[in-house]
Amino acid sequence: MAIAQETVILHGHIIDSLILAKVLDTILMMGGTFDLEEVVIGKTRHEPSRAKILVQASSTDLLAEILRAVQPHGASIERELDCRWEAAPADGVFPDEFYATSHLPTQVRLQGRWIDVERIEMDLGIVVNADKTAARAVPMGDVRRGESVVTGRTGIRVIPLQRPQERDVFSFMESQVSAERPHGHIVADVARRTDLLREGHRNGKPDSKVLLAGGPAIIHAGGRDALAWLIDSGFVHVLFCGNALAAHDMEADLYGTSLGYGLSAGRAVPHGHEHHLRTINRIRAIGSIQAAVESGVIKEGIMAACVKRGVQVVMAGTIRDDGPLPGVITDSVAAQAAMRAAIPGVGLALLVASTLHAVATGNLLPARIPTVCVDVNPAVPTKLADRGSFQAVGLVMDAASFLRDVARELGWKG
Amino acid sequence: MAIAQETVILHGHIIDSLILAKVLDTILMMGGTFDLEEVVIGKTRHEPSRAKILVQASSTDLLAEILRAVQPHGASIERELDCRWEAAPADGVFPDEFYATSHLPTQVRLQGRWIDVERIEMDLGIVVNADKTAARAVPMGDVRRGESVVTGRTGIRVIPLQRPQERDVFSFMESQVSAERPHGHIVADVARRTDLLREGHRNGKPDSKVLLAGGPAIIHAGGRDALAWLIDSGFVHVLFCGNALAAHDMEADLYGTSLGYGLSAGRAVPHGHEHHLRTINRIRAIGSIQAAVESGVIKEGIMAACVKRGVQVVMAGTIRDDGPLPGVITDSVAAQAAMRAAIPGVGLALLVASTLHAVATGNLLPARIPTVCVDVNPAVPTKLADRGSFQAVGLVMDAASFLRDVARELGWKG
Amino acid sequence: MAIAQETVILHGHIIDSLILAKVLDTILMMGGTFDLEEVVIGKTRHEPSRAKILVQASSTDLLAEILRAVQPHGASIERELDCRWEAAPADGVFPDEFYATSHLPTQVRLQGRWIDVERIEMDLGIVVNADKTAARAVPMGDVRRGESVVTGRTGIRVIPLQRPQERDVFSFMESQVSAERPHGHIVADVARRTDLLREGHRNGKPDSKVLLAGGPAIIHAGGRDALAWLIDSGFVHVLFCGNALAAHDMEADLYGTSLGYGLSAGRAVPHGHEHHLRTINRIRAIGSIQAAVESGVIKEGIMAACVKRGVQVVMAGTIRDDGPLPGVITDSVAAQAAMRAAIPGVGLALLVASTLHAVATGNLLPARIPTVCVDVNPAVPTKLADRGSFQAVGLVMDAASFLRDVARELGWKG
Amino acid sequence: MAIAQETVILHGHIIDSLILAKVLDTILMMGGTFDLEEVVIGKTRHEPSRAKILVQASSTDLLAEILRAVQPHGASIERELDCRWEAAPADGVFPDEFYATSHLPTQVRLQGRWIDVERIEMDLGIVVNADKTAARAVPMGDVRRGESVVTGRTGIRVIPLQRPQERDVFSFMESQVSAERPHGHIVADVARRTDLLREGHRNGKPDSKVLLAGGPAIIHAGGRDALAWLIDSGFVHVLFCGNALAAHDMEADLYGTSLGYGLSAGRAVPHGHEHHLRTINRIRAIGSIQAAVESGVIKEGIMAACVKRGVQVVMAGTIRDDGPLPGVITDSVAAQAAMRAAIPGVGLALLVASTLHAVATGNLLPARIPTVCVDVNPAVPTKLADRGSFQAVGLVMDAASFLRDVARELGWKG
Repeated sequence: MAIAQETVILHGHIIDSLILAKVLDTILMMGGTFDLEEVVIGKTRHEPSRAKILVQASSTDLLAEILRAVQPHGASIERELDCRWEAAPADGVFPDEFYATSHLPTQVRLQGRWIDVERIEMDLGIVVNADKTAARAVPMGDVRRGESVVTGRTGIRVIPLQRPQERDVFSFMESQVSAERPHGHIVADVARRTDLLREGHRNGKPDSKVLLAGGPAIIHAGGRDALAWLIDSGFVHVLFCGNALAAHDMEADLYGTSLGYGLSAGRAVPHGHEHHLRTINRIRAIGSIQAAVESGVIKEGIMAACVKRGVQVVMAGTIRDDGPLPGVITDSVAAQAAMRAAIPGVGLALLVASTLHAVATGNLLPARIPTVCVDVNPAVPTKLADRGSFQAVGLVMDAASFLRDVARELGWKG
Repeated sequence: MAIAQETVILHGHIIDSLILAKVLDTILMMGGTFDLEEVVIGKTRHEPSRAKILVQASSTDLLAEILRAVQPHGASIERELDCRWEAAPADGVFPDEFYATSHLPTQVRLQGRWIDVERIEMDLGIVVNADKTAARAVPMGDVRRGESVVTGRTGIRVIPLQRPQERDVFSFMESQVSAERPHGHIVADVARRTDLLREGHRNGKPDSKVLLAGGPAIIHAGGRDALAWLIDSGFVHVLFCGNALAAHDMEADLYGTSLGYGLSAGRAVPHGHEHHLRTINRIRAIGSIQAAVESGVIKEGIMAACVKRGVQVVMAGTIRDDGPLPGVITDSVAAQAAMRAAIPGVGLALLVASTLHAVATGNLLPARIPTVCVDVNPAVPTKLADRGSFQAVGLVMDAASFLRDVARELGWKG
Repeated sequence: MAIAQETVILHGHIIDSLILAKVLDTILMMGGTFDLEEVVIGKTRHEPSRAKILVQASSTDLLAEILRAVQPHGASIERELDCRWEAAPADGVFPDEFYATSHLPTQVRLQGRWIDVERIEMDLGIVVNADKTAARAVPMGDVRRGESVVTGRTGIRVIPLQRPQERDVFSFMESQVSAERPHGHIVADVARRTDLLREGHRNGKPDSKVLLAGGPAIIHAGGRDALAWLIDSGFVHVLFCGNALAAHDMEADLYGTSLGYGLSAGRAVPHGHEHHLRTINRIRAIGSIQAAVESGVIKEGIMAACVKRGVQVVMAGTIRDDGPLPGVITDSVAAQAAMRAAIPGVGLALLVASTLHAVATGNLLPARIPTVCVDVNPAVPTKLADRGSFQAVGLVMDAASFLRDVARELGWKG
Repeated sequence: MAIAQETVILHGHIIDSLILAKVLDTILMMGGTFDLEEVVIGKTRHEPSRAKILVQASSTDLLAEILRAVQPHGASIERELDCRWEAAPADGVFPDEFYATSHLPTQVRLQGRWIDVERIEMDLGIVVNADKTAARAVPMGDVRRGESVVTGRTGIRVIPLQRPQERDVFSFMESQVSAERPHGHIVADVARRTDLLREGHRNGKPDSKVLLAGGPAIIHAGGRDALAWLIDSGFVHVLFCGNALAAHDMEADLYGTSLGYGLSAGRAVPHGHEHHLRTINRIRAIGSIQAAVESGVIKEGIMAACVKRGVQVVMAGTIRDDGPLPGVITDSVAAQAAMRAAIPGVGLALLVASTLHAVATGNLLPARIPTVCVDVNPAVPTKLADRGSFQAVGLVMDAASFLRDVARELGWKG
């Protein structure tokens, strides 16, 4: 029955990353069969394993489909060929058969050598340079007519991630998305990583930035002081947010309210819902958040701490926004590009209480960056886990409690 | 068109409790019309108001229906008649036309005098004593054949609650069920009330007990230490829980895990899911939780604090239970009766992270008792609010963060 | 104690809209007192009521605060004065004391006459024309330097909404946000309104457009066929969506998948997650969705139905987007303006399975437009209700089931 | 460093069930090392695999811990010894070292032979018969003093489940808990299984019963007709529910309401919340649900269909109950036992809109029984999946839509 066959190689940490199991499973589920011609399993945790699998199918079409399906797990076809490419037919358009990236480390074979694809990120194309010595991942909108875009699946290999060395929450196979599991240790692990990264960042170590992407519920629920302290203490180096978080943070400074709720009194302040509008109007009159902080109009809080500590802030606009504040990047493509540009150097991503920012940032992060997604609604961490970020941890918890607990672990007295 | 009419009286805090608006609204929505014959509105907050409303309808049936509908809001028919009653036809069975109670203060007219119904609670019947001088609310299962059960709606009046004097979270018209509102002040108000009640309880003041009804997520999510401290410090006087909370609390003491998750290490302990079974087995061998605490087998935690402080504990069984632990009341009718018996004297109810206990306890509470329902899932606080508890506050927050924040407000150093 | 006082007038449906109760409540909660000098209550549903309230406070500051607080409920100060205005200090900046609108019908007093504010919408300013004969609500970003912007609260009145005549789900006081209430009748009421509006729209009646704002979960969960049928049958006239809904709709047409899940086979298709990328790339190559439909590349589905029926589509970009598709408005301010321009004429708004679009659209809708917010997550309908849209109904239900049930009510055979 | 070692054997479908990966992972995570002495991988889907693993640890204690941890995955120690047992010290108490079962098929070695443990279920003990020829799983409360209870881990093996042959939703590795995945195919797969089981049940095939465990939201949300039709058409053979589902079902028959909401009119009926009380009172007066149906008082609906079709109903009481109805088993231990007794013969379990019943039933089900958990709240399906039921599928969907869609697939015309 098997009239088509091909041998593929799996190499790396294919046992403890479940890769071998998934590949065999995929072959069988798609209707193929296999012969395990060779399995060498690393005897220790650090020794890589290797499997040679003869894949058989009832037609060449089915075989091709199966090979396409197992390739993103790292299965490369044994006959090693260079990758193929085609010229982009127009600005912002890939060739029909473009290879779409995953967020795992990826190599392409060029002139007989395996080359790392730079700036890897999910759902991009791969552009090869003119002399075929380098390759990088490129968003669809950024490709220029005539550039060489990798097509098909030949000569491309994906490297399964090794489980990290640290024995903390990020080294587990399964993300923990449940309100019924203890939070304390996750918070402690996050705090420890954050502390290590601050140390690293001070010493100029690579990949030592902490990125926080957050929504306005941080302010509403009472996490403003803790986050401002974390920024002020040097624990956060990049902030992704929207108009609302910035406006409510400064509203709290100017009026002591958030969405009209008195943060100390704790109840709806009459006409308080206007406060964020008046805040935005005032900052627009001043011209910039930086000027508002430097002139002393805005004294404390998240935005003030960012200005004072030189934290890189990307504020992206949405159709929900009032105003918006000066500094908000209203064009979503430009905002995405600004976020993308801020990713290199990030060693830990905290996605807090914002579905939009959590998913958008998750899309931009390479799989290797440890990521924590915190939301009181379990759907958001689940969605992140669904996208298959290997080292993503989900936490069902309100934003304020999370930030306050992390800050306390790091010495906050609030 | 109006061929039937009747005059009803509304009396009390009918403006600020929205009663007048609701009654007029109900009349119109049901197809009736009204004539406001007299409206005297209290000019200050404490002065009661009074309205006299002529209700008109196109048939006597419709009129009767409208009168039934407005009666629970406190509208009493002007011609004052004694209430009617009928003998219960069998043990545990009310007469067909029995009056079903609300959780608001209620009076029945007996021999020309308005008598308070004792032990008011939602969804019960009213039994009148032999000489027609007293009345009390009785669960269906508790009525005995031949007892006089109030029927119809004549001679029954419901007293609208006055808004409480305190200017805290419980004096607001709308319960706050949202993850996007500040929690800090609710926690602070709850802590302040708790503190006042402890003071009152020490001084023998009535209605000064604090009731906590909670689920096992308190333990899983890390709230055990805080709750144990609250109990140990005299802030909680009655605990409603199930087998699971007690088992996981003592599991934490014996094994340091909850549902197999290491509470300190924070990750799944191999075979840890057995720990709760072994805990239950051990306590069964010892014979009782009290004996386990007194013999020093169980040293710390919620159950230990309850035993040491003489807190009244009602543990109700469910079909989810392993074991169960000695002391668990496996019969749901008996458990409900035990809970009911513990309600008198309660001045604040905290319903934390348990849909079952929150709803069951909510059913037993008179409307006047301030109630906070805390759950990370907004459906639970919403369900409580749906049941119309006037002074119920919903809080979308994880149980551990809530208990830790309350405890911190009260002086906990955890 | 009362050293400051002012008489305010409430006029309209102040009883059945709870306005009177809320105003008295606000006065008391803020520490003022009142004297009800006159209360004339309409004796029927359609007759307006009137109240004259003497508000007293211990300071002129407190009095001013109370008056500010009751004004949005429709309380106007008796001494009728013209509204005040000030010139906008710069493009996109209001004067400091600008009046921020609610979404209720609003009038300003100009040269002794009460003038309706056009294009009313929440959280805007009011610009008065040069000869002070007209006023319209204007977003902050749209105001031009020197335009006359209404300030303070004098000479402004808000008209409480009358409860609608129809006895359907939109005429109730409370939005229904619960998974535990029957959905059938809400679906039936929505269908009936939709049917009436189609009839009206065909006959050129004003305010007869149906707006649907939706997210990609419509496609993922299986609601595509039903929505396409609704559009194709003339039941939907305006569609607000994002890149994802459009991309997944066309992915379903080209590949039979949504986010890589086979919609018929129902399971993850190998490499299916690429399909939306390839779909976007293909439409970019063609140049527009319209061209893709007209050339026959896209044959069926939501976008095809929109093109064929001339439905107005506003696609707003976000930072989550791949591509994006041609036609997506990537600038959020421009997208908001396009949505705003599409609101006039809308008589029913269906906000389905998209927090972002639901909130953004909710912000733009005047209070009088009946609105249904459908989401499987109760937080979204609750958030909409929180914003105080009077006629907003929340439905906790998955998007596909909702759309399929509405379509079946209207004759769909799917 | 490794001063202790032991060889363990894994046998069966250890690749496609991910068993080998999990075992190696566990060894490493706990600080051990391994040597894969032999790996024979089945070359086809049906051929079992076999691995021989030398486990090494730095102490005998650690080694013992690791062996305990890998044993539930099916790793048996090579030197095959009989299992050990100890006499139960008292009624309802296991020996300290009792072996706690998983829900996977399990064998114990008795007199040199591997014997299947009967009635396997999670979290029980294993009792060996007097002549050591048979073993069965026994709840803690059921053990009698002196019975031989298996202890330790020697001579016990767990058989990994093979993936099912059918290529439907139950044969996938990952449960699908997301509102953003297509539901249509899951519903179709469930309907197909249900149909096959009805066929099997008619022909007397073993394991062909369909069990539905459901909550009252089925009635509230509008799924009553569909479920009654499914029962009446012979698709459901066992029903687990509580007092509320039965009461609201019969309330709908007697009053046309559910929790006071008119199911057809669709809005709150004045005093409708009493209807369930009156319903319960009426059935109590009649004496039983069966008598109410047979006498024609209850004509249609779920309970009527159950009586007419002879469906086995287990109604378990809770502390939330009013009444309760006659037939409700108020003792939770007795109710659990009744549920347990109804499990044998079940071939498909549908857990719909009830956290309590879903978790309680999930606890009783052997891992091999396909299970679907449907809830609008993602936490419930997630919790079920957390408990590791291999073939459990989670569906985030409202109960009514699920039941109506399943019924339509099977021919319902509602």
